[in-house]
Amino acid sequence: MSAHHEIAIEKFGTAHSLTYRDRAIVPPGPGEVAIDVKYSGVNFADVQMRLGFYPDAPKKPFVPGYEVSGVVSEIGAGVTNVKKGDQVVAGTYFGGYASRVSIPATQVFPLPKNATLETGAALPVNYFTAQLALHDMARIREGDKVVIECATGGVGTLATQMARAAGAEVVGLTTSPHKKGFIEALGAKAYTLDEFYADSTLGGFDLIVNSSGGAHIQRQRKRLGLTGRMVCLGMSSGVKDGRRNFARIALAALRTPRISVLKLFDANTGIYALNALHVLRDPVWVERMTKSLVAVDKLDLKPHVGKVFAAKEAGAAHAFLETKQATGKVLLAW
Amino acid sequence: MSAHHEIAIEKFGTAHSLTYRDRAIVPPGPGEVAIDVKYSGVNFADVQMRLGFYPDAPKKPFVPGYEVSGVVSEIGAGVTNVKKGDQVVAGTYFGGYASRVSIPATQVFPLPKNATLETGAALPVNYFTAQLALHDMARIREGDKVVIECATGGVGTLATQMARAAGAEVVGLTTSPHKKGFIEALGAKAYTLDEFYADSTLGGFDLIVNSSGGAHIQRQRKRLGLTGRMVCLGMSSGVKDGRRNFARIALAALRTPRISVLKLFDANTGIYALNALHVLRDPVWVERMTKSLVAVDKLDLKPHVGKVFAAKEAGAAHAFLETKQATGKVLLAW
Repeated sequence: MSAHHEIAIEKFGTAHSLTYRDRAIVPPGPGEVAIDVKYSGVNFADVQMRLGFYPDAPKKPFVPGYEVSGVVSEIGAGVTNVKKGDQVVAGTYFGGYASRVSIPATQVFPLPKNATLETGAALPVNYFTAQLALHDMARIREGDKVVIECATGGVGTLATQMARAAGAEVVGLTTSPHKKGFIEALGAKAYTLDEFYADSTLGGFDLIVNSSGGAHIQRQRKRLGLTGRMVCLGMSSGVKDGRRNFARIALAALRTPRISVLKLFDANTGIYALNALHVLRDPVWVERMTKSLVAVDKLDLKPHVGKVFAAKEAGAAHAFLETKQATGKVLLAW
Repeated sequence: MSAHHEIAIEKFGTAHSLTYRDRAIVPPGPGEVAIDVKYSGVNFADVQMRLGFYPDAPKKPFVPGYEVSGVVSEIGAGVTNVKKGDQVVAGTYFGGYASRVSIPATQVFPLPKNATLETGAALPVNYFTAQLALHDMARIREGDKVVIECATGGVGTLATQMARAAGAEVVGLTTSPHKKGFIEALGAKAYTLDEFYADSTLGGFDLIVNSSGGAHIQRQRKRLGLTGRMVCLGMSSGVKDGRRNFARIALAALRTPRISVLKLFDANTGIYALNALHVLRDPVWVERMTKSLVAVDKLDLKPHVGKVFAAKEAGAAHAFLETKQATGKVLLAW
């Protein structure tokens, strides 16, 4: 194999503006691992990047993609944690939409025993996000009363299982009534967002994991109990129906509150915002998070794969994700 | 004894506007405990109340005071946790500046073995504040890198010991260079606030306990590491030199930031604000906090009593506290 394939963002635009292209193979450098990629994870941030609405994105043209699963095809000098032929999962922090990647060994982890290559590719970003939100920021405890918004998404599915494993009571929210059964199967109580807002008896929470951002932040913060905390994960309310709708994005940003610390003294609560992909630019945290993947077997976590697209159909995968049809992770298969 | 004494706020004003007055004795009601008070704790919030700058204060005239130590003189029907003659500490949530109080038994706790009546009166508010900030909000962990501002104050002294007991590395800050030795004796590294700001290598903290509020919040937040948290305890920069200085109070309030959640995504940190006295209006939390006083013996916590004034000298006690001469708790003796 003297060439591999990759999917690049060469210009901002609709889902169909992604470019499928060939690239020459280069051997892994010292401390690096080359992986024959079987599955690449598709994230909401990739959609935001394609729309041109993601400040941390590299300059165009670039290959998006934060995570892969596959088989080690070659190792660079000094690599000891994996060997050729091993099945692995890895965080790529750009460049993951490719049939082959060469990345630092600290980002590579042996495929958990209870995972397949397919479910493995659904792990890194979502697991790291859930881990950072629940355990590094909120520091969840047994007995906590927790709300997970978007409990059927890639992060929410894992976060719900991880919160349950930590001994928390979990309420899972969804905008789609037909997904409530899926949430209940994870051991949580399920409500639609509208039902949650309408039921004022739902309150006193120790932790709310907010995904939709915008005006939902203030509406949900009122449901925190004394000393409770919210962790904001993003602004999914800012993109809808697959259109590069700057008005909607601007509206969600405008509606994202500024929290008055003076008023916070009345609430006696806390607020965090997490950009996991930002945290994962720090090699110390990358290594820490990669090692924390041992919990996947220990807690018997099952990431939920929503749909697998052929890599050449990456545009359709983006369209599927941004129209909110997805339950669980969207993958590209090579 | 058919009368007892109390100190009331009848009008807002200087430290010398406090009124010493007599009051008839009434027996404790069902579930209540009457205490012959030996010491009453003086808090910064009492000073703010006397200045008319404390929204949660009762209507004038009222008796301030959040905590006492003393001897049980009488118990109401159904009280089982203490008996007549027991030495106790108690949170009073107003009314503590008095030679006798009758309060719910859930607010009363046997004097810890390692405390005297004097150090016991220094416990409730400061211990509850430190407990809420470190364990209920921040959820401090072994190995955390922690900054305690005002480490020589009533809360800071206990918070420093409690953070050390939790296995954290602690940096203690003070505005007074001569108090650094006191901080070091508690097992923390000591810096003046100016030294801390000048040394840009001091960063990556998991927790900063901020006491001064205002512009210090943003200056200190920059020193948080990824996923780190700040707990704001107050706005001590707003009162100085014992004057009812509304310009200074307004300035500190104006300088207290509004935190943009959008920018919080770049910082990947969290912020809490704690008004412990507000939390302690909730009987569930009062009972939980009172029970948590078992930690005082377990951790061998030593509250630091700064100065004891005769109850009739309450005005001098206020003046002493607000001019920042205090290291540790200021008490009134009956």
